[in-house]
Amino acid sequence: MRVLALLDGTILDPDAPLLRADDLGVLRGDGVFETVLVVDGKPRELGPHLDRLARSAHMLELPEPDSAEWEHCAKAVIDAWDWAASPEMALKLVYSRGPEFGEGQTAYAMGLQIGAGVVRRRQDGVSALTLARGFEPAEAERSPWLLLGAKSLSYAVNMAAIRHAEANGVDEVIFTAADGSVLEGPTANVVVANGRTLRTTPPVIGILPGTTQAALFRAAEKAGWETRIEPIQAEELTSADGLWFLSSVRRVTQIRTLNGQPVAASAELHAELSELYESNYRD
Amino acid sequence: MRVLALLDGTILDPDAPLLRADDLGVLRGDGVFETVLVVDGKPRELGPHLDRLARSAHMLELPEPDSAEWEHCAKAVIDAWDWAASPEMALKLVYSRGPEFGEGQTAYAMGLQIGAGVVRRRQDGVSALTLARGFEPAEAERSPWLLLGAKSLSYAVNMAAIRHAEANGVDEVIFTAADGSVLEGPTANVVVANGRTLRTTPPVIGILPGTTQAALFRAAEKAGWETRIEPIQAEELTSADGLWFLSSVRRVTQIRTLNGQPVAASAELHAELSELYESNYRD
Repeated sequence: MRVLALLDGTILDPDAPLLRADDLGVLRGDGVFETVLVVDGKPRELGPHLDRLARSAHMLELPEPDSAEWEHCAKAVIDAWDWAASPEMALKLVYSRGPEFGEGQTAYAMGLQIGAGVVRRRQDGVSALTLARGFEPAEAERSPWLLLGAKSLSYAVNMAAIRHAEANGVDEVIFTAADGSVLEGPTANVVVANGRTLRTTPPVIGILPGTTQAALFRAAEKAGWETRIEPIQAEELTSADGLWFLSSVRRVTQIRTLNGQPVAASAELHAELSELYESNYRD
Repeated sequence: MRVLALLDGTILDPDAPLLRADDLGVLRGDGVFETVLVVDGKPRELGPHLDRLARSAHMLELPEPDSAEWEHCAKAVIDAWDWAASPEMALKLVYSRGPEFGEGQTAYAMGLQIGAGVVRRRQDGVSALTLARGFEPAEAERSPWLLLGAKSLSYAVNMAAIRHAEANGVDEVIFTAADGSVLEGPTANVVVANGRTLRTTPPVIGILPGTTQAALFRAAEKAGWETRIEPIQAEELTSADGLWFLSSVRRVTQIRTLNGQPVAASAELHAELSELYESNYRD
């Protein structure tokens, strides 16, 4: 099942062409996106996703997205979805600079099913590999034209990194900066547990602020965990009490091996963090 | 005027939608492209462009493009163009991984007019700014997942760099590596003249091998110039006898100021190099 809607809420056939050949979204990867998890008709963290869409749009100097319009568009997709058939949806919001030789931006939302592999890994965990991302952590602030930390449509490197891992029999990637510090996964944030402290890396070093990570930290703080957003060195990962990828569609996915070596992966801790994240969405 | 053709040569309305909303070309900037200059119906450097398309596709692990098919498609666009109305065309070849939830890749060619500003700058020259690209020159070979030197559809950074320059009243950008060496422009190669020697930077440091630069060097060598492909430090640029951007649509465009300072910009030398480049295409 796939559901496609324009920003004005018009539902379209997802198999029919939508974008012109000269759309800068395709010619230049020039646009931004978000992926929102929707469970049983309820979008999770929609406000933070729309805030991040606006942040990315600002970094790319696109006209500021109108959150009310995007909410309306998201609702149109959610209303058209068959929730009995599929209780979970990945809702993609896509906003490109539009056709190079036309008027206005391109904006649409798409409801997609979440792959069985992604769902299984929430239980089974994943293997991961650290791969260099090439830049120093200070580069993001120093060189805003590099768009580090923008969720742009230019994700070819993120996809190539995952292919590289898979070609080596590994599921996922943790990007590291030139100084050896941890950045993020190609499509997820990295969360590290040490005792009753959860840590993740700061957006200022050129990564996306995580909506799912923020939701977990919010619940964890209420439950008495300490949370920290601070630089983390790659060598600290192997001695942690647990490592996770957090993203909307992954939810809380445990990392079980890193660079071929097992890492601490307690089933109890995984269950506790998963439960903390889910507790955000109970009535 | 715009002309659009599918890979099989079918001519389509360029104003009609072509790509599905889930095309990975737009969702992930996951694909490759080329821009070929066509003058009076004759494509320039089509073979090298198709070789580079294949090189980029290989870096992104896309199925190898069939050069004969692309030549056929290019010819369809060229045949449909009104050469009397517009004697010059930018021919874009676009090849994406295709729809995420569909079959096969997306492949098309588009003939576009070249902006008056680009044409004027071939005569008037441009101002340029050096901007950091963030990575070390060794990173390209060390970290192939960074796709450095692939002409991918993920060009948001290239576009952001040009916007950054323009916001500072400057036309163009020369990217530099983390060690201060010269890389390339966001959509052009950089060529440096010192005496009767022309130099450009090597693709191994993570830049595109230039088709127009290669054409210039070919003609220059025949005319007795020495040519070198070697690392160039940014500080060498200001003492050069001349600097140029070379790209298919730019042809040979002289750089007249760099970071606000005038650089040597002899009209005679510019005329000589322009003539050398053009000499490749005389019967």
